[in-house]
Amino acid sequence: MSQNVTVLGAGSWGTALAMVLADNGHRVKLWARRNEQVDEINHKHTNNKYLPSVTLPKNLEATTSFEEAIEHGDALLISVPTSAMRETVASLVNINKSFPYVIHASKGIEPDSLLRVSEVMLDAGIDQVTNGIVCLSGPSHAEEVAKRQPTTVTVSSETYDDAKAAQDLFNNQHFRVYTNEDMVGVEFGGSLKNVIALAVGLAEGLGFGDNAKSAIMTRGLAEITRLGTHLGAKPLTFSGLSGLGDLIATCTSKHSRNWRAGYQLGRGKALETVLHEMGMVVEGVKTTRAMQQLADREGIEVPITSALYDVVFNHQQPESASEQLMGRLKKNEQEDFYPNVTD
Amino acid sequence: MSQNVTVLGAGSWGTALAMVLADNGHRVKLWARRNEQVDEINHKHTNNKYLPSVTLPKNLEATTSFEEAIEHGDALLISVPTSAMRETVASLVNINKSFPYVIHASKGIEPDSLLRVSEVMLDAGIDQVTNGIVCLSGPSHAEEVAKRQPTTVTVSSETYDDAKAAQDLFNNQHFRVYTNEDMVGVEFGGSLKNVIALAVGLAEGLGFGDNAKSAIMTRGLAEITRLGTHLGAKPLTFSGLSGLGDLIATCTSKHSRNWRAGYQLGRGKALETVLHEMGMVVEGVKTTRAMQQLADREGIEVPITSALYDVVFNHQQPESASEQLMGRLKKNEQEDFYPNVTD
Repeated sequence: MSQNVTVLGAGSWGTALAMVLADNGHRVKLWARRNEQVDEINHKHTNNKYLPSVTLPKNLEATTSFEEAIEHGDALLISVPTSAMRETVASLVNINKSFPYVIHASKGIEPDSLLRVSEVMLDAGIDQVTNGIVCLSGPSHAEEVAKRQPTTVTVSSETYDDAKAAQDLFNNQHFRVYTNEDMVGVEFGGSLKNVIALAVGLAEGLGFGDNAKSAIMTRGLAEITRLGTHLGAKPLTFSGLSGLGDLIATCTSKHSRNWRAGYQLGRGKALETVLHEMGMVVEGVKTTRAMQQLADREGIEVPITSALYDVVFNHQQPESASEQLMGRLKKNEQEDFYPNVTD
Repeated sequence: MSQNVTVLGAGSWGTALAMVLADNGHRVKLWARRNEQVDEINHKHTNNKYLPSVTLPKNLEATTSFEEAIEHGDALLISVPTSAMRETVASLVNINKSFPYVIHASKGIEPDSLLRVSEVMLDAGIDQVTNGIVCLSGPSHAEEVAKRQPTTVTVSSETYDDAKAAQDLFNNQHFRVYTNEDMVGVEFGGSLKNVIALAVGLAEGLGFGDNAKSAIMTRGLAEITRLGTHLGAKPLTFSGLSGLGDLIATCTSKHSRNWRAGYQLGRGKALETVLHEMGMVVEGVKTTRAMQQLADREGIEVPITSALYDVVFNHQQPESASEQLMGRLKKNEQEDFYPNVTD
């Protein structure tokens, strides 16, 4: 059934998801801040800065008017950087309109508060406009989604009906959508994998090979699982698309900014230099601090994250972190990997 | 403590493991069939066909005499292709010498019998010369091990003491060895991941991107876990080094023959052509048949394996398998991924 759908955020991921919605026959209104970008989307049907060489569908329109965008939608997707989520929700609740559910597609942990994205949304008052939050996550480089290459994602919500509605909205032949009831696990998996991608990039920058990369990804996922389950997630979620799947996509692809930033750190560059040269947000840097703080608060060991933290924030030499990246030897694999998970 | 160690099989993996043992100060005797290869190892300290650009340690000697090799060893490692394991063990039991334990480092399922490697060893009478079998497995390209790049592996045995002894033999600064008590899971993980590597190669040959690769690896590991746990393995083993770790190493590296064979199949070449052009054993092809037969026998659904099987053995067009590789949509992720595993 064709719907009016609003998408807040016209970066690469918001635009790619808007394309999926338009492909499904929905009338999509995409909100962006800059006039030039809106003009380009509406008249040239491109968004070249974020999705080069991609032609957008005709039933995808953009606007700079936040109110107009919100008024348009029967359904709402928010795809803004985690750092802009609080402000975006605050603007939303100022408008007198409610939604059956609100979908977010952002990955990260808010600095200082250490809240997941759905918790930030609640803290900013999203419950004034909706009773349901849905999180969309999974192994999904925007560039490939925009080219209609086969992709799978997870939609998660506290109530099955909301996740099902989001599934119906997005699902198509190229873009397969699965429901999952564990939003805590889906949000942690999507955020924390950026830390491991940085660590893998760091190791590759140090000259480590595929054997080491595989070990760090395996131990890294165990580390995420350990912390996430302690904080209420279900362990199996981390073995699914939004956990393992997204970890693989992020750690093994040259699309990944986090991997590239880690690689430059491993080559010996300072954090400031790396971030300056990339000229883009590298979500994993902030998430490394947040993950270390969460682990400290909860008393959970996260040796890979801690090694990375010391290089990124304490000016430790990458070479001296390599021992910790590969792990200290314990007697038994499962003892080391899963002290808090029983099988 | 320095020991005399015998290694049967001088392919890339057997030679790389012999190097680790020699690095640890053990006196290593490596058995190979061909005079030329033995001469090259003993006089030039190279094994160029299998490990190009690598210099072997001086305390690694080779011999063509099976008896001499066996007489030498206080400890024994067998690293031969799965297809040669039965015959190798038969030769071994003909010699009047016993070992505290025998380590194997082979990955595969025996055709027709559908036995794991340790089961083949038992079936061939290994219990006449030892009470303990140890399996060594994990994410470990031989080329990287030979270059002393950081690597982690698992050693597994039915009794902890045997695994611990193997750990002490191999463990060093570059080559980290973990024990794991689930030999069934370690053997299935190491063997069945070759099937998923073929499937990932096939998908990439068809032009699929990183999103699809990540999905197939995630669903593939779930498929292996489903079959393996049904056959007595512990689920967590598949999330460890010998499961997930080895899957990542094999699916994301250009070192992998299985990936390369799958890629050529995806490009539309026939199996015979691919195998002829590669001129090497592609273990995953045989394992695809074995895994499908195991799944049929046990009544377990393995859709990725079945899609691959149809392309490899039933001349189905790769394009028509792509739907099945990406999976049919079910309502819920965990329902689809883990019908037999509860969390």
